[in-house]
Amino acid sequence: MEALKKIIREIPDFPKPGILFYDLTTLMQNKAAFAQVVNRMSEPYVGQSIDMVVGVEARGFIFAPTLAYKLGAGFVPVRKPKKLPAPAISVTYDLEYGKDTLEMHADGISAGQKVLVVDDLLATGGTARAVTRLVEKLHGEIVGLVFLVELGFLGGREKLASYDVFSLIKY
Amino acid sequence: MEALKKIIREIPDFPKPGILFYDLTTLMQNKAAFAQVVNRMSEPYVGQSIDMVVGVEARGFIFAPTLAYKLGAGFVPVRKPKKLPAPAISVTYDLEYGKDTLEMHADGISAGQKVLVVDDLLATGGTARAVTRLVEKLHGEIVGLVFLVELGFLGGREKLASYDVFSLIKY
Repeated sequence: MEALKKIIREIPDFPKPGILFYDLTTLMQNKAAFAQVVNRMSEPYVGQSIDMVVGVEARGFIFAPTLAYKLGAGFVPVRKPKKLPAPAISVTYDLEYGKDTLEMHADGISAGQKVLVVDDLLATGGTARAVTRLVEKLHGEIVGLVFLVELGFLGGREKLASYDVFSLIKY
Repeated sequence: MEALKKIIREIPDFPKPGILFYDLTTLMQNKAAFAQVVNRMSEPYVGQSIDMVVGVEARGFIFAPTLAYKLGAGFVPVRKPKKLPAPAISVTYDLEYGKDTLEMHADGISAGQKVLVVDDLLATGGTARAVTRLVEKLHGEIVGLVFLVELGFLGGREKLASYDVFSLIKY
């Protein structure tokens, strides 16, 4: 994965001082690298009869639908409050300072469907954990969670210990 | 396209009274329909050596990267102000009430690259027109703009008259 790391742009002090931001846009605008990461992220789930891939706005919308297409699955968006037009379920979860709420259409997933959760980045795991709660409220079966990049030093994987978690690039 | 229209959920009075909202989530969560629309949206551009596909957050991120993957192209995101971490160019354009600004990384597109602009919905065309201005500031060549749904009665196509515009489903 060292070759992919060289394509990711590192930006110090973004969005605030002391944070090193891994900018994945340089990877996505590289056509060979983009195809490669989509293929590798989906590879463990080929032949697993995934029904639905779930992604969170905004950056989670980049990889989740692409993997859904690759795996022959449907795509279900998770959005911030008041964005979804039909009846929705919601979860509220703790942030470092304050709380956040995410929503999913109540008919987005049917009981027993095999679900893959996809995001670009696994940081503290708070968002991913909230998404698993939405899926389980609708009695979907979570086959796994897949991330392009994992910031291992933030411990997000522990928050998702009861799931199969796969990340392509680790820092 | 009538079969696809039956899968799109129509929601009256969203986001405000008098507006009939076409909810595409019911189409995206239908695995056969999702694969079909991605295939049909990309079909005219297969073999056209598209270098980059551009999409606007948040809903434009759903189809643009998927088409990029399908066409073997890279993906470049257009975002709201202050979201992109590296040096960016911007355009400001008029809305019905007020103005809006969109940004793209200054290295997102190189001069002469063949670019496809993708979004889920062509309404008034204001956002799409702004995206073409960003691409042309960087001297990209716009091969076309493709939309899943076009609301023909809003006249967006006229605002894009100098481009090749393709939409799969028309209302």
